[in-house]
Amino acid sequence: MKFVSIVMGSRSDYDIVSQCAETLKKFGVPYELIISSAHRSPERTKKYMKEAEAKGAQVFIAAAGMAAHLAGALAASTTKPVLGIPMESGPLRGEDALFSTVMMPAGMPVGTLAIGKAGAVNAAYLAIQIMALQDDELKIKLQEDRISKAKKVELDSSEIETIL
Amino acid sequence: MKFVSIVMGSRSDYDIVSQCAETLKKFGVPYELIISSAHRSPERTKKYMKEAEAKGAQVFIAAAGMAAHLAGALAASTTKPVLGIPMESGPLRGEDALFSTVMMPAGMPVGTLAIGKAGAVNAAYLAIQIMALQDDELKIKLQEDRISKAKKVELDSSEIETIL
Amino acid sequence: MKFVSIVMGSRSDYDIVSQCAETLKKFGVPYELIISSAHRSPERTKKYMKEAEAKGAQVFIAAAGMAAHLAGALAASTTKPVLGIPMESGPLRGEDALFSTVMMPAGMPVGTLAIGKAGAVNAAYLAIQIMALQDDELKIKLQEDRISKAKKVELDSSEIETIL
Amino acid sequence: MKFVSIVMGSRSDYDIVSQCAETLKKFGVPYELIISSAHRSPERTKKYMKEAEAKGAQVFIAAAGMAAHLAGALAASTTKPVLGIPMESGPLRGEDALFSTVMMPAGMPVGTLAIGKAGAVNAAYLAIQIMALQDDELKIKLQEDRISKAKKVELDSSEIETIL
Amino acid sequence: MKFVSIVMGSRSDYDIVSQCAETLKKFGVPYELIISSAHRSPERTKKYMKEAEAKGAQVFIAAAGMAAHLAGALAASTTKPVLGIPMESGPLRGEDALFSTVMMPAGMPVGTLAIGKAGAVNAAYLAIQIMALQDDELKIKLQEDRISKAKKVELDSSEIETIL
Amino acid sequence: MKFVSIVMGSRSDYDIVSQCAETLKKFGVPYELIISSAHRSPERTKKYMKEAEAKGAQVFIAAAGMAAHLAGALAASTTKPVLGIPMESGPLRGEDALFSTVMMPAGMPVGTLAIGKAGAVNAAYLAIQIMALQDDELKIKLQEDRISKAKKVELDSSEIETIL
Amino acid sequence: MKFVSIVMGSRSDYDIVSQCAETLKKFGVPYELIISSAHRSPERTKKYMKEAEAKGAQVFIAAAGMAAHLAGALAASTTKPVLGIPMESGPLRGEDALFSTVMMPAGMPVGTLAIGKAGAVNAAYLAIQIMALQDDELKIKLQEDRISKAKKVELDSSEIETIL
Amino acid sequence: MKFVSIVMGSRSDYDIVSQCAETLKKFGVPYELIISSAHRSPERTKKYMKEAEAKGAQVFIAAAGMAAHLAGALAASTTKPVLGIPMESGPLRGEDALFSTVMMPAGMPVGTLAIGKAGAVNAAYLAIQIMALQDDELKIKLQEDRISKAKKVELDSSEIETIL
Repeated sequence: MKFVSIVMGSRSDYDIVSQCAETLKKFGVPYELIISSAHRSPERTKKYMKEAEAKGAQVFIAAAGMAAHLAGALAASTTKPVLGIPMESGPLRGEDALFSTVMMPAGMPVGTLAIGKAGAVNAAYLAIQIMALQDDELKIKLQEDRISKAKKVELDSSEIETIL
Repeated sequence: MKFVSIVMGSRSDYDIVSQCAETLKKFGVPYELIISSAHRSPERTKKYMKEAEAKGAQVFIAAAGMAAHLAGALAASTTKPVLGIPMESGPLRGEDALFSTVMMPAGMPVGTLAIGKAGAVNAAYLAIQIMALQDDELKIKLQEDRISKAKKVELDSSEIETIL
Repeated sequence: MKFVSIVMGSRSDYDIVSQCAETLKKFGVPYELIISSAHRSPERTKKYMKEAEAKGAQVFIAAAGMAAHLAGALAASTTKPVLGIPMESGPLRGEDALFSTVMMPAGMPVGTLAIGKAGAVNAAYLAIQIMALQDDELKIKLQEDRISKAKKVELDSSEIETIL
Repeated sequence: MKFVSIVMGSRSDYDIVSQCAETLKKFGVPYELIISSAHRSPERTKKYMKEAEAKGAQVFIAAAGMAAHLAGALAASTTKPVLGIPMESGPLRGEDALFSTVMMPAGMPVGTLAIGKAGAVNAAYLAIQIMALQDDELKIKLQEDRISKAKKVELDSSEIETIL
Repeated sequence: MKFVSIVMGSRSDYDIVSQCAETLKKFGVPYELIISSAHRSPERTKKYMKEAEAKGAQVFIAAAGMAAHLAGALAASTTKPVLGIPMESGPLRGEDALFSTVMMPAGMPVGTLAIGKAGAVNAAYLAIQIMALQDDELKIKLQEDRISKAKKVELDSSEIETIL
Repeated sequence: MKFVSIVMGSRSDYDIVSQCAETLKKFGVPYELIISSAHRSPERTKKYMKEAEAKGAQVFIAAAGMAAHLAGALAASTTKPVLGIPMESGPLRGEDALFSTVMMPAGMPVGTLAIGKAGAVNAAYLAIQIMALQDDELKIKLQEDRISKAKKVELDSSEIETIL
Repeated sequence: MKFVSIVMGSRSDYDIVSQCAETLKKFGVPYELIISSAHRSPERTKKYMKEAEAKGAQVFIAAAGMAAHLAGALAASTTKPVLGIPMESGPLRGEDALFSTVMMPAGMPVGTLAIGKAGAVNAAYLAIQIMALQDDELKIKLQEDRISKAKKVELDSSEIETIL
Repeated sequence: MKFVSIVMGSRSDYDIVSQCAETLKKFGVPYELIISSAHRSPERTKKYMKEAEAKGAQVFIAAAGMAAHLAGALAASTTKPVLGIPMESGPLRGEDALFSTVMMPAGMPVGTLAIGKAGAVNAAYLAIQIMALQDDELKIKLQEDRISKAKKVELDSSEIETIL
């Protein structure tokens, strides 16, 4: 089965990361979600990566804060696409996690999304877009989502707009 | 034909962006490369997007500096994966381009790579990883590249290392 | 009719942006206010721009947060003056929105105001100043406003000041 | 005569600011250009402001670096639109000048452009857009400029583009 | 009479700035305290400066936030020492005010203290140190204050310290 | 007796720094903990350093916020290893303390840990790692701690994980 | 004799700091200038401070880069006014030195000037302003300097200005 | 044999990192130095760590730039002290490497030194200080180094100082 694998570095990331999972669910994309740390459980992380890849993981999503090495560690363990969500945790509010996730050296890409909640949702969207390259049904869902998003803007506007 | 489409915002980005194209070429991945601006030629950008998508573009890569809106503009025009290279140009050395590229709102992802040269190379790598999900030959090339990178580290080390 | 057009990127910007509208109202300057997104509803944005311009919009004001492309998108669609309000939303507190709004390439200006509330009020003031170039009554109101602001300072001071 | 007034804080700003003047000249917009400092010659600045306004200045453009108070000082002396160019000078490369120019308090707007060269050119463009509200010929020139900019993109692209 | 003059840019700065006044009071240093703005009441600011200087002001302290021009405006109006307190107000939490206060051009110094509360107290201390150059009683008070501060550290420590 | 010495600059740092002490206690490493300031009680700081070193202090840990000079002051007074905890206090949220602690000149190292709570815990861990070079029992405790941390990750994950 | 004392942390600061000395010389203010480090020669620094204060030092100026503790160390050793010049040295271009110099705790002020050259000149100016409180001749020189600075602006302007 | 192990992430780091090795050599501390990458050669890094630890490595020093994960990866593989040198490479000049190295989660410390050259030298110094806890000869060398550094300051000063 083709699926998306979400790895978060810490229990405290769950509230935000669950929105990534919710987005995948909304589009009917199967996913796995675990906690594993680049530093505290490197063996577990590596073992999980191998198993997930063998089972059919197409895209890996990593969420971590501060010196956020998790996405980079995943990227070093697979040649599947790895996406990174820099968490907003800690005193630097995610600027550290953003730099730690995005500034990867040549040959080891992490496709990085926005810090925090928007990034969690968008990691799911980008994973879905990647899956949709092989799945026309998914592609149609993405196009419908765009239309509904545009309609939502109109609806939101209608509640407050002033037109002369 | 399945290919990668590279759009850069300005002629001055070419020296860096050409390294993205070189990387795709090295892996035998077909690509298109054009200059088109989110601001100066929005119609052209949009028209190109449609044509490229119709012809088989699988992944779009956008390179822009300063208030780098190009990747976001592409993301708004397609449901294909869009990757962003924040250019180092201008007095803020790419921190502005990084923020403008990565901090996208929920539903409009841009998979962002490092500022500058490493990002240009990695946008190609991530695109290749995405293409490789449907192309086993490419997958093998990526795995071989990893091995050769690891060997390069050993070789580099051997020239300077001190072992007791 | 000559008027000011305010476009905000999201419903959540309304509390702050309404202060922009309030300021225009205080000076008797007609305005339109809608929600439209550079990314989620680019067609709507563009269509609105054309209609507003045809109806007499003199100045466009765009308010958006994070990777704030809205002002730039408006600037690319009109040769009327475009003013930008970088919103304080998101983990980077508006520094991302400021860079995304102000660092526009040559030929595509966005007159950018302060992040957040002060910027929302000042976008209105700058629009009024531009309208006042053709409206002597408005010019007098602006001059009176200055006098009343100076008096307000004196009044505020009188409540707490210590003079030897 | 209606004209644009450019004030720069220091002789060393001239190389960059001259590009603002060049842009105005290209569009046939009359301008004045002087050096005057918010701190070193506050009287001169104020006196000049009054005279320029009396002579027909429609828009003021201020260019200054570091703790860039010049645009704010002009804004406090007139109710005409004031635009600010944060210069790239000094060890902080213009981030200080950007904050000092853009973060104005409510009621005292400075329409701020990008740091450095792009900002110098864009201050001229924004001033021209404001002038064009009363000048149809100028409006047409602005629209033609857009077309020529879009063509320039195509031309630039044709030199390097790769199309499959 | 020799005294210290405190000028704050806005009523909202009073809570913090009052700690500057309290510190002066504790050392028996006379002071004036008013609200006046560099932008909203430039004439009042200038007039006050002249009167205060004529009455015996030895040191001026300016407190302002965001694009904090007040200290620089005072510095341009007097050759007496001017000290600056960058306020923490606004989305950038005082980094803007710090840059706007401290990065003054050669010949127009503002002796800048820390952002916020510590800066408010320290502006008073630095003013007292300057006054103490001509006042031996004040000098002794400063030395006693140092001793009492050192004792306070010991006392604080004794409540929690662990010594083997 | 060999022990770790913790010095904090201010009573307000205690809540965070106590977590450093707790960590040492958990590993059975003796420690001293006092308040002493680089600026308010430099003599006390120096005197304490000498006594602590004579009594057997192996590692010094300094916690301070804002212009955090304490760790550097300790480093200048001893050739024992000095570790620094940049506190999150003040408007700049510890970025000032981080720079003030870590950017030491050649020859005067401060081994700097993360801003705030994670740094407080990690200063203890690094001190324990240093002590463990001479203490095999401690080394075993550190290895057991790693195992328990890895298990904790598994346990945390088991509560929320989704595996296909 | 009343004089100003300049202490710099490193030989490499001399080129910039010499401009501080030149400014004092231009105004006929006597000064001492030495190299002494907060970290490498704390005893020498302290001993020098005492001697300088005994000989008549009125104001201390400290110049240091990176984790710039020198000004704070001087401030802790004297109740005379201490001014700080954050040097531009190192990869962070003086932002670290600025934070390390200006963010002092309550009761230990450092009057901080701009990073680099402008700061070096302004530390001299602020010291002269402080000395001028007791020296009418110096006060007149400062006022004449202001006039000559204003004239210099006019002269500079006359070379390039465009007046309609 | 007890020794220090230096690992750098890339050949391009060698010029700076060699100064770390030079410092160890000056103090007669044996060291190993290799290139190995957290991402490109994770197996090699891990294998080397084990061998080095078995052979007697007491302290590990990691040097890496941009999203600098190397020090954290070492820290996750050993309970020996790990020190980090954030390299100045890339457009963000080492601010990314600093955050990626220092902001480690609780339980996984990296003792971080300054960005660039000063950090490379200081990683050696801190390693020597750690080794000196078990080596009195080394302790004496460190104390002599302090004395010679203090003398060097005096010598440097004597060449330029001005004493009244």
